Amino acid sequence: MKPWRGTFRWCVQTARTRRGRSTDTAMTLSTPPTRPEELRNLIRKGELTRPTSGFAPGYVQTNLVFIPKDLSFDFLLFCQRNPKPCPLIEVVEAGSAEPTRTAPGSDLRTDAAKYRVFRHGQLEAEVDEITNYWQDDLVSFLIGCSFTFEAALIRAGIRLQHVDQGTNVSMFVTSIEAVPAGAFSGPLVVTMRPVPQEKVVRAVQVTSRYPSVHGSPVHIG
Amino acid sequence: MKPWRGTFRWCVQTARTRRGRSTDTAMTLSTPPTRPEELRNLIRKGELTRPTSGFAPGYVQTNLVFIPKDLSFDFLLFCQRNPKPCPLIEVVEAGSAEPTRTAPGSDLRTDAAKYRVFRHGQLEAEVDEITNYWQDDLVSFLIGCSFTFEAALIRAGIRLQHVDQGTNVSMFVTSIEAVPAGAFSGPLVVTMRPVPQEKVVRAVQVTSRYPSVHGSPVHIG
Repeated sequence: MKPWRGTFRWCVQTARTRRGRSTDTAMTLSTPPTRPEELRNLIRKGELTRPTSGFAPGYVQTNLVFIPKDLSFDFLLFCQRNPKPCPLIEVVEAGSAEPTRTAPGSDLRTDAAKYRVFRHGQLEAEVDEITNYWQDDLVSFLIGCSFTFEAALIRAGIRLQHVDQGTNVSMFVTSIEAVPAGAFSGPLVVTMRPVPQEKVVRAVQVTSRYPSVHGSPVHIG
Repeated sequence: MKPWRGTFRWCVQTARTRRGRSTDTAMTLSTPPTRPEELRNLIRKGELTRPTSGFAPGYVQTNLVFIPKDLSFDFLLFCQRNPKPCPLIEVVEAGSAEPTRTAPGSDLRTDAAKYRVFRHGQLEAEVDEITNYWQDDLVSFLIGCSFTFEAALIRAGIRLQHVDQGTNVSMFVTSIEAVPAGAFSGPLVVTMRPVPQEKVVRAVQVTSRYPSVHGSPVHIG
């Protein structure tokens, strides 16, 4: 089942998407959305297609991965064995696209700003919604995203470069291998936020309070 | 898939088994086993068939559940949704009976003191080992057991009635429903340890340090 190698790297990028397009209207919004429903509604209407960093402060943001049911045990086990990069917020069973526990009323097929479709490890498409790609055997995994603790970092006086610049956070593929599970394996992918040395301890204190969205840094230096 | 209802209740009892038999030699051992390998070896040789409460202090003890692969996603999801009663210590994929991460060299088919075999929700047998029942499609789930924190409770000056009496801990089926997942549902089962009122706070402090083996009490009163 080698073709699926690399799916993890994909999943990290799926829900928060890549840098916004130039046609993006979100940057021109006078008041950025603060409520999750409001944010999802903008995305669903196609009015926001940029990464969601900085929006809906105080609410959990997640990455999104859809896996066919026959591989879903392997991926769930991959998450269980790698709780730091893959902390599960909710798993929606095949046949539904509504995460009733954490975001009732939402639709996972339309409410993320951008999706990447992979088939057998190959990128097939990058689209704004996946209604046409939806299969009834897809299991949805909502994995805690570090965007969640950014509001707390800012409140603690730590400025975030990518938020100031309106870009996506920097991401790096590390040399640390995740613990494999069935068809899934791959290196750990991390986000990187430059923090002034005198504020590093405070940043560790703040992020360590959020273990379900990756928590404290894997590496400082 | 209603026939599987109740599997959770079974799993809680599987690895730590029920009250020891009268032919049990463990009670006459001059020195109770303190090392996990030693304890497992006694069990494997059939020289110990009682619950393992009080043995190998300081080491994690687990409950054991074996589930056919086609139901293993549902059960893994059940554990993910119910981390308090079902904290996963290790999952061994189909085709192996050795938990290489937590107990390398052990054999899950022979190293628990007693097993209950259920088929379609019906108790079919209670045996000392399951070599004859083993199927290559069985996935093994090691779920943290509260026996783990008993040594810490005793060190904190809290006597445990069932350890003093050499019996199994009391267990109760509560009116609290676990969060269902696929084929699995059922009420929360708890262990109960009577603790003098003036030591309850200390007992909560001690047990809350062990979230991966159920942690602090669900109910006090």
